[in-house]
Amino acid sequence: MLEYITGMRRLPLVLVVTASVTLAGEGKWTPQQVLELGPAWVKQQGFSLPLSKLWDEKKGGGLLANAVQLPGCSGSFVSADGLLITNHHCIVGILQEHSTPQANLVKDGYLAKTRDDEKPAKAFRIQVPRRFVDVTAAVLAAVPEGADDLTRFKAVETKQKQLVAECEAQAGTRCTFAAFDGGLFFTLTEFAELSDVRLVYAPPEMVGNYGGETDNWSWPRHTGDFSLVRVYENGKPYQPAYWFPVSTKGVKPGDAVAVLGYPGVSYRAWLADEMAERRELYFPRAKSVSAEWIRIMQDEGAKSAEASIATSDDLRGLLNRRKNAEGQLAGMQRGKLLEKQKTSEEGVRSWALKRADQKAALDAYEALSALMVEKRSTWERDFLLDTISWGPRALAWPVVLVRKSTESVKADAEREPGYQQRDLERLKDRLERDQKRYSPAVDVRILESWVLRMLELPVAQRSPTIEGVFGKLRADAGMSRDALRAQLVKLIAGSKVFVLTERMKMFDETPEQLKARKDPLLELGFAIDAERRELKDRRDRWSGATLRLRPAWRKAVLAQSGKPVAPDANSTLRVTFGKVQGYVPRDALTAAPQSTLSGVIEKDLGEGDFEVPAKVREAYAAKKFGRWVDPSLKDVPVDFLSDCDTTGGNSGSPTIDGNGRLVGVNFDRVWENVANDFGYNPVIARNVNADVRYLLWLLEEVEANPALVRELIGTTK
Amino acid sequence: MLEYITGMRRLPLVLVVTASVTLAGEGKWTPQQVLELGPAWVKQQGFSLPLSKLWDEKKGGGLLANAVQLPGCSGSFVSADGLLITNHHCIVGILQEHSTPQANLVKDGYLAKTRDDEKPAKAFRIQVPRRFVDVTAAVLAAVPEGADDLTRFKAVETKQKQLVAECEAQAGTRCTFAAFDGGLFFTLTEFAELSDVRLVYAPPEMVGNYGGETDNWSWPRHTGDFSLVRVYENGKPYQPAYWFPVSTKGVKPGDAVAVLGYPGVSYRAWLADEMAERRELYFPRAKSVSAEWIRIMQDEGAKSAEASIATSDDLRGLLNRRKNAEGQLAGMQRGKLLEKQKTSEEGVRSWALKRADQKAALDAYEALSALMVEKRSTWERDFLLDTISWGPRALAWPVVLVRKSTESVKADAEREPGYQQRDLERLKDRLERDQKRYSPAVDVRILESWVLRMLELPVAQRSPTIEGVFGKLRADAGMSRDALRAQLVKLIAGSKVFVLTERMKMFDETPEQLKARKDPLLELGFAIDAERRELKDRRDRWSGATLRLRPAWRKAVLAQSGKPVAPDANSTLRVTFGKVQGYVPRDALTAAPQSTLSGVIEKDLGEGDFEVPAKVREAYAAKKFGRWVDPSLKDVPVDFLSDCDTTGGNSGSPTIDGNGRLVGVNFDRVWENVANDFGYNPVIARNVNADVRYLLWLLEEVEANPALVRELIGTTK
Repeated sequence: MLEYITGMRRLPLVLVVTASVTLAGEGKWTPQQVLELGPAWVKQQGFSLPLSKLWDEKKGGGLLANAVQLPGCSGSFVSADGLLITNHHCIVGILQEHSTPQANLVKDGYLAKTRDDEKPAKAFRIQVPRRFVDVTAAVLAAVPEGADDLTRFKAVETKQKQLVAECEAQAGTRCTFAAFDGGLFFTLTEFAELSDVRLVYAPPEMVGNYGGETDNWSWPRHTGDFSLVRVYENGKPYQPAYWFPVSTKGVKPGDAVAVLGYPGVSYRAWLADEMAERRELYFPRAKSVSAEWIRIMQDEGAKSAEASIATSDDLRGLLNRRKNAEGQLAGMQRGKLLEKQKTSEEGVRSWALKRADQKAALDAYEALSALMVEKRSTWERDFLLDTISWGPRALAWPVVLVRKSTESVKADAEREPGYQQRDLERLKDRLERDQKRYSPAVDVRILESWVLRMLELPVAQRSPTIEGVFGKLRADAGMSRDALRAQLVKLIAGSKVFVLTERMKMFDETPEQLKARKDPLLELGFAIDAERRELKDRRDRWSGATLRLRPAWRKAVLAQSGKPVAPDANSTLRVTFGKVQGYVPRDALTAAPQSTLSGVIEKDLGEGDFEVPAKVREAYAAKKFGRWVDPSLKDVPVDFLSDCDTTGGNSGSPTIDGNGRLVGVNFDRVWENVANDFGYNPVIARNVNADVRYLLWLLEEVEANPALVRELIGTTK
Repeated sequence: MLEYITGMRRLPLVLVVTASVTLAGEGKWTPQQVLELGPAWVKQQGFSLPLSKLWDEKKGGGLLANAVQLPGCSGSFVSADGLLITNHHCIVGILQEHSTPQANLVKDGYLAKTRDDEKPAKAFRIQVPRRFVDVTAAVLAAVPEGADDLTRFKAVETKQKQLVAECEAQAGTRCTFAAFDGGLFFTLTEFAELSDVRLVYAPPEMVGNYGGETDNWSWPRHTGDFSLVRVYENGKPYQPAYWFPVSTKGVKPGDAVAVLGYPGVSYRAWLADEMAERRELYFPRAKSVSAEWIRIMQDEGAKSAEASIATSDDLRGLLNRRKNAEGQLAGMQRGKLLEKQKTSEEGVRSWALKRADQKAALDAYEALSALMVEKRSTWERDFLLDTISWGPRALAWPVVLVRKSTESVKADAEREPGYQQRDLERLKDRLERDQKRYSPAVDVRILESWVLRMLELPVAQRSPTIEGVFGKLRADAGMSRDALRAQLVKLIAGSKVFVLTERMKMFDETPEQLKARKDPLLELGFAIDAERRELKDRRDRWSGATLRLRPAWRKAVLAQSGKPVAPDANSTLRVTFGKVQGYVPRDALTAAPQSTLSGVIEKDLGEGDFEVPAKVREAYAAKKFGRWVDPSLKDVPVDFLSDCDTTGGNSGSPTIDGNGRLVGVNFDRVWENVANDFGYNPVIARNVNADVRYLLWLLEEVEANPALVRELIGTTK
């Protein structure tokens, strides 16, 4: 039985819906907020469905809750028999799992002809929301009177672990805790976790990821970034309470749409001073470090096929990280996002200055700004300590092993999140899988790059550990790269962490056993771990302060705004309303909102990121368009733009029309809109959706699979 | 006295102007062809000037001849006092020459406040056309009856040298020889060479090269790629016979324009089989080699500032080479250029098959195709031998030194072009200047890459020299990179070619002296030079064959076409007529034909390729637009597109309106149009021009220099 509890806290001011209601576009609304915005507002967004069908407060649930959480992604059911649609890029792991030298499913895709052909995924869990509980009172009650910041943080963390543990005591249940607006309120979401997921359809890579890294974060796009899996329960197709009928009519410019899902994180509630840290420090350094490591991987990859294969995933991750950082910086600059935030803050502050009851808000504002000064004083080293997790495995592995063994000594409830019993299987899996991503030639150079960056830090920020081990190399004016390299090679040669069987053994050892090994990289790991502990303590204290300060400030912001404001994304269920529309990416260029199959063919280079599969090329050449030609486009539609307010985590999100029918699957934002995490700009805020008619065309005209088409559209009215 | 001789050979079929005349766009016409196309045709292109003003057959000359040749570029006079306009990127050498640690002219630009402030360029020669002579009869007469292909080539080459030498016997004269349509006819162009060129105005780099490599070959563009120099003769401003009045009205969409200049090379007369060599071999390999060397330079550049500075020019060249190769491949694929050429050839062949007098054409077609088979049999090695000139200096320098000393033993007239007395000063300059481009850390890795590619050639194509020196390293199954590197390091350590003073001495030595040095790289140079000689002999023979075959085939193509066809670009003066218009770069995107100052500001990132100079940013912020706001754009215009038919060498070409006024300076093509060298596609054939109103705005509103503005527009009616 599905049971939705709609006891979500009402943001006090959300109820004061004034005339200045935001029309479409901006806002990742909670379902509860949608109810509060009311039927007239929802109708204004072009949604003809009764509010009760979107979100039924009495029964709890409704179509909006047909947004299912996948690892890092969203998805939705599209048939009564548990057929679920998401992005192609969200299920690549399943394709890799079933690929063999004889059958490359990543490259060629897969279509199960019958249910017996559906391919089970080994470790792919989906989470169907079952209950939303407001836990604010319980969380706040757990904080002792007069607690200092660190204590406050620890108290909330302990309460969080307790709530999650209680919730997960039910079989087949996964629960997630979330703070809204930096601690204004807290929720617990209870999901049914379903782990029998089977692959039904994935298009060939050159449909599902057509355009690859070249087109990533851009428009026009010509990617069929969708896939179908079927969810089973007790060996039978899962019967979801809600699913979206799939539209056969699709969309046209101006149509109302909504995107549902689990957006991960955004920063619009941050102060301009906090955003400045992203613009001046975080993104520039992320870009510089990625760029350097990309160069190293490409250079070694060019020399050896082994290095190239081993680092291909990491390289894709770094390319993505760099491109994202560039897009964020460009978007912040172009959109003058910090300047706008500053202006808006000044507005709130003048408003508050006139009100005696707003002193706490003004004090909180000052204190949050002061916190940034403290954070900046050690920022560069702290950042380098963070990069270990996506940097040299010669450090990343030891650091994880040391932490795991240290946490394992504690009682489960005391352990750091990520190292609790519920996490260990995933953690161990990752340490094992990582072996095939390890290239010794690349790793030593990344380690060298990392150590050099540490050695080049401003004196006040230097790491005692790194200074102790490598600092003497700086002594002889003009440190010798060769001497540094020699020392690194020696460290690596003396360590066993690179030997998979040894590393797996280490995973289960106590700190004493690890120390007794006298492994030089484990020793370095212990020393660096201590610095990371110290950093974590500081961060916990900062978080405790933020828990205290941010809500005070946000209350003033919300009060002054006098209109509904959606909280920042935090991986909880949200809905965003928008319209299908193009945009002007920049001076002298106009982007139409829809792309076509002819555009797919036009981009075909026959190689690299643009190699259209033969069967698609042939169907196009033979003009096999069937019933999927859009009358206005006079072509098969492929992707479309809308001004919905999305971010990472919305991958695979269902895009529905005003009648609640599925018209697309969200998969990206346009380049100009990468920085929308810091502010929504209606002129360039566009998300990219794969048109479901492209999927239907592929299934019907290219794959000739009428059964699946019937399952998708058979019940559509 | 200027004297234009219009004795250019009339292409027999050009006179048969049929109804199917091509309208605008396609065709790099010779001035003579423009006359033959006639006044009605020219008027149809939107040119209201009488034909006699464009090109006066009696007097010879006219406005079309105000297209001046610069090193690798074109330019034109824009005042009676020798003021000449060209691209910013055509005069970067002058800026470098005058830059000091205190005054970086490349970065900051330069504006001479008075004529005394104009900065003389050391080695910048401009060539003003004075005479065009058809030398076909003389050239053909020089070929002995029954000559084989190598003899034919040598005879033409000897005649060429003789004609050039005779022509250049006049003081201050430079003469260039050109073959049209692969030998259908030949011309000699006589230029007045003027070497007193002084810098008047160059905008800051972040105007003249705004967008840098990121925007290179793309649209929308926001680059002020223009500069002004003044030409002097006998210490006084040169008084050109023709100059373009500068328009203050500019252009609007739909306006007729023409671009004049010296386009370097195009391949539209090539057979599809010959184009296939570009698509299947040349561009893919050029891309792969450039990409590898780019990686090396970026990797070493990241490690050391010296390497980064030394290789910055080479790196820019490689990035450009790679991007060009990618654009050519994409354009060939998208435009189906080979397929179209093949279809067109089939048309000519069926036509010819029905005509008894066309047997020679059909035979020529077969023979040209057969030649490609021969060329492909050694293609990979030949290509690697060619890359030496843009590859490792450890080979490039020895090879030039060896060739120079070997040629110097011969009588001047016998020497290979490029090594004659007239070339030596430039050659020596280059060998000297090159020193600052040399990075030992980079060069050894590029040498290693080159040798590895040689060792990996198919057995039948391997180089005896490289096999002799390095082949044994392959012997032990799995050649060791370390062993190869050690041997390269040894070779380099034993050589003196990297010592500037030694290299300059070597430049003047005889082959015997060079051999007596026992320098290991010179020894390698002699061996490789021998292979390059053998390659040159083959190529001379192929050229001899082409001289015989191509005209026979082209005559049939022209006859069958029944309409005027412009010959391929060959660095001679051409004019192309077009219209200002936007385009659809690809599905779902529309490009407007004009960009604006607001677009410049919109792209401003404050760093990298997009850092608008403070004075420009401030003038924009202060809305100091003066009289330069375009009434339709409501903004200061920056760049514009037209469908003129341009290629490399057209950089700096004047773009004139229908009244013969200068409206812009051509500087690029759009990305989709890079492959237009192989075929003109009206849908995407767009060249990029800097709008002269952007220059006038900069001079008047940013630099506040009314005198220069007056000189530019004072005489415009």
